[in-house]
Amino acid sequence: MVLLSGGLDSATVAKIAQAEGFELHALTVDYGQRHKFELEAARRVAAALDVHEHLTVRIDLHYLQGSALTSEREVPKHRDTEAMATGIPVTYVPARNTLFLALALGLAEEREAANIFIGVNAVDYSGYPDCRTAFIKAFENVARLATKAGVENQLDFKIHTPLIDLSKADIIRRGMELGVDYGLTHSCYDPSTDGTSCGACDACLLRLQGFEEAGFTDPLPYVS
Amino acid sequence: MVLLSGGLDSATVAKIAQAEGFELHALTVDYGQRHKFELEAARRVAAALDVHEHLTVRIDLHYLQGSALTSEREVPKHRDTEAMATGIPVTYVPARNTLFLALALGLAEEREAANIFIGVNAVDYSGYPDCRTAFIKAFENVARLATKAGVENQLDFKIHTPLIDLSKADIIRRGMELGVDYGLTHSCYDPSTDGTSCGACDACLLRLQGFEEAGFTDPLPYVS
Repeated sequence: MVLLSGGLDSATVAKIAQAEGFELHALTVDYGQRHKFELEAARRVAAALDVHEHLTVRIDLHYLQGSALTSEREVPKHRDTEAMATGIPVTYVPARNTLFLALALGLAEEREAANIFIGVNAVDYSGYPDCRTAFIKAFENVARLATKAGVENQLDFKIHTPLIDLSKADIIRRGMELGVDYGLTHSCYDPSTDGTSCGACDACLLRLQGFEEAGFTDPLPYVS
Repeated sequence: MVLLSGGLDSATVAKIAQAEGFELHALTVDYGQRHKFELEAARRVAAALDVHEHLTVRIDLHYLQGSALTSEREVPKHRDTEAMATGIPVTYVPARNTLFLALALGLAEEREAANIFIGVNAVDYSGYPDCRTAFIKAFENVARLATKAGVENQLDFKIHTPLIDLSKADIIRRGMELGVDYGLTHSCYDPSTDGTSCGACDACLLRLQGFEEAGFTDPLPYVS
């Protein structure tokens, strides 16, 4: 069971899981992101991976008005790495990974899948509390206690976070080795109406910097 | 922040929270239950409590086909208490309380509310793994680690489960003391098209038995 957003990280995670021999069940959460390009990217990535199934769950999180990703607050632009690393970004969505993992857990139990893959990363976005190992371990404990499958010991749930200690460049290097087509993915927080990436938001800057450090060219087009 | 389903338990929990002096923010999750009577009941209960706000989050869990509450599987009828207490019921929805608490947590963080109330009960439905104290404590740990508010120590999240060790009769006695109008609530898993309770599913039987043991008459009408 892999959480697939359509971004660079989750596309890499899915490919890693497949390379490890897992049959992929992909879950995409449509939580009212400001644009649908990420969802389209998720469909492209799932198709390219030939996943066993790809489910999209819709959930309206507009009531969470504090986050730039679910509301009309402005996405910060042209910040340097230091500014990005300071504090928790405005793009933080309260309890998002808890919610995503809860959804994945329900589906994993239903499908009798013990292995959940999520593309959290503690390096570039150190500001997200729910991207750290302590959180993941705590959720693994919840998974064991919360489910029929966990309690009856049919399934020993494991949350896999193969990217957690990797830099963006490391992630891209790993994905390129495995043949991920990053041209299918979408990272930008603030794309043009045709879906072209802005090249200036934190997600674009981290991605571009990652490709540069890894020694590859990002196949995506950019506005700036 | 109180999870309000429209059932007897959550109506009692909300009243208990109010009696303890909390301002109520109610969250109802519309997860594709087979009937909408529960949602209507939640609205009635929220209005009667004069809550500060009542939000309904829609989430489509039809992909979880294994549960009788989210699919077309038959609801068991006329079971005795022993049969109900054996194993995990078919009305179990995989990871439901994990999901509900994740939604409540996001909203609680957004609203700067540290106290989450949920009407879980380990007595009548001992078969639900996510109604036990061990699960609740594990989720509390997740809440602390998953959130900006928890990590920055602005909020020390507490999951309140005032009903967890009470029998249905005890819950009803407590609610009656506090003046809960149980005529506003809905418990039946399999109501008629006009919303009348069946009187034969596990939820109706436990409710009716609880009222009888508590020495009160259930104000709801029943088919049988």
